[in-house]
Amino acid sequence: MKSNETRVTRRDLIIGAGSFAAGAALLSAAGPGFISGAEAKGTTKYPYKKLDLDEVGKTAYERYFTKFCANTTMGGIFIPLQKKVGDPYVSFPLDAITWAHGGIMGWGTACGTLIGAGMAIGLIAGEQGDPIINDVVAWYANNELPIYKPAKAIKADIKNVSKSDSPLCHISTGRWMKKEGVGFFTPERLDRCARVSADVAMHTAKLLNAWAEGKYTPANQPLANAKAFGLPVQNNCTDCHGSNIPKTPGA
Amino acid sequence: MKSNETRVTRRDLIIGAGSFAAGAALLSAAGPGFISGAEAKGTTKYPYKKLDLDEVGKTAYERYFTKFCANTTMGGIFIPLQKKVGDPYVSFPLDAITWAHGGIMGWGTACGTLIGAGMAIGLIAGEQGDPIINDVVAWYANNELPIYKPAKAIKADIKNVSKSDSPLCHISTGRWMKKEGVGFFTPERLDRCARVSADVAMHTAKLLNAWAEGKYTPANQPLANAKAFGLPVQNNCTDCHGSNIPKTPGA
Repeated sequence: MKSNETRVTRRDLIIGAGSFAAGAALLSAAGPGFISGAEAKGTTKYPYKKLDLDEVGKTAYERYFTKFCANTTMGGIFIPLQKKVGDPYVSFPLDAITWAHGGIMGWGTACGTLIGAGMAIGLIAGEQGDPIINDVVAWYANNELPIYKPAKAIKADIKNVSKSDSPLCHISTGRWMKKEGVGFFTPERLDRCARVSADVAMHTAKLLNAWAEGKYTPANQPLANAKAFGLPVQNNCTDCHGSNIPKTPGA
Repeated sequence: MKSNETRVTRRDLIIGAGSFAAGAALLSAAGPGFISGAEAKGTTKYPYKKLDLDEVGKTAYERYFTKFCANTTMGGIFIPLQKKVGDPYVSFPLDAITWAHGGIMGWGTACGTLIGAGMAIGLIAGEQGDPIINDVVAWYANNELPIYKPAKAIKADIKNVSKSDSPLCHISTGRWMKKEGVGFFTPERLDRCARVSADVAMHTAKLLNAWAEGKYTPANQPLANAKAFGLPVQNNCTDCHGSNIPKTPGA
């Protein structure tokens, strides 16, 4: 092992996290943490009507190929609401969120589907929706995607599903590409991301439907990771702090 | 070196990236890549008037302590426009983007300031604004922040600036915390992120002012990294694919 290399075990990280969490607990008494719950005064929420999940999925899948992940995930929810409710959904310019594709213009940060879902939830539920997008992110990271199967693939049939273990576009897309054995600029990768967009739009609509009925209960504690580790973070530290990172996306 | 550890050099990554880029170049002829330029038909853009950067910075800095990074960065631009233009800025519910704080509800993905800036740019410029948010992300990653200095610190004076080399909240915040020697739930970290919010809002307004005058030219090629590496990505691979990752955020 070279002198400038660092060996990291899960135990190191748990020990490190423990001391950070203890520090955070002490410090949170002195300084403010994050706000919790709803603080929606002064906002105009977009009126919501329960959505048909199949319509949401089909809309998001088909729109992806011209508008990409963020725009189409938001569109999968907003376009059916344009028909059911009208304004303010009709007036909202969906092109305002196209930039989030590829983890913000190809930088590989948060999957654009999550930014699109977040904006849809935020406009509909305001800060009451914060636990909903938190649940969507956790669901995204912890499930084998894509689930959505189009009646007929628009670009390509695909073979594999994969669990990203991460909300990051770079990791989610890279892991699936490695499993499928294809590159980024391929019909297969496009079809996979179109299906993931449908998945995220449908799961978001499912949670919004429950919320609209007063039946939504958060599945995950918001900010649990940040509080436990003393830093905004995923909960799978050794995926990056360790020796599991491939040499290249396809290695 | 243990058998399950991987040693990565910059040369490995450049070689790997080269083969991916070559593959991408071949494949882009067969399948569509991303759209480029403006495709704004059917959208309603928010009318823009040139902003005073000091007002933008002060608004974003002060609002941070109740609304956090994404909401306050967007607010730093939208609140002055509420006064200058009125609607649609007055009607837009800024609480719809609070969820993006901490890299989306504390998951540490894209810095919330960038998501707030992206939505402000998107609503004002539509897809014409895509190169602008790309430039804001590159500027964020490559500069020592925070630059903004409040007349009087609201939570705490701070000593350090740091270059994140990344658009990710986890890395940007973690690197600054390490340099400053403070934890996440501290008055110093709050004041740092409030100042970074002011920085991002001001830089965004500066680019929007230039765009409004017809004088904006992209400083960075959109999707350059994704095209070069064959995956949505930052351009500093060895920051994660290598041995430079600390054991814990404060190590």
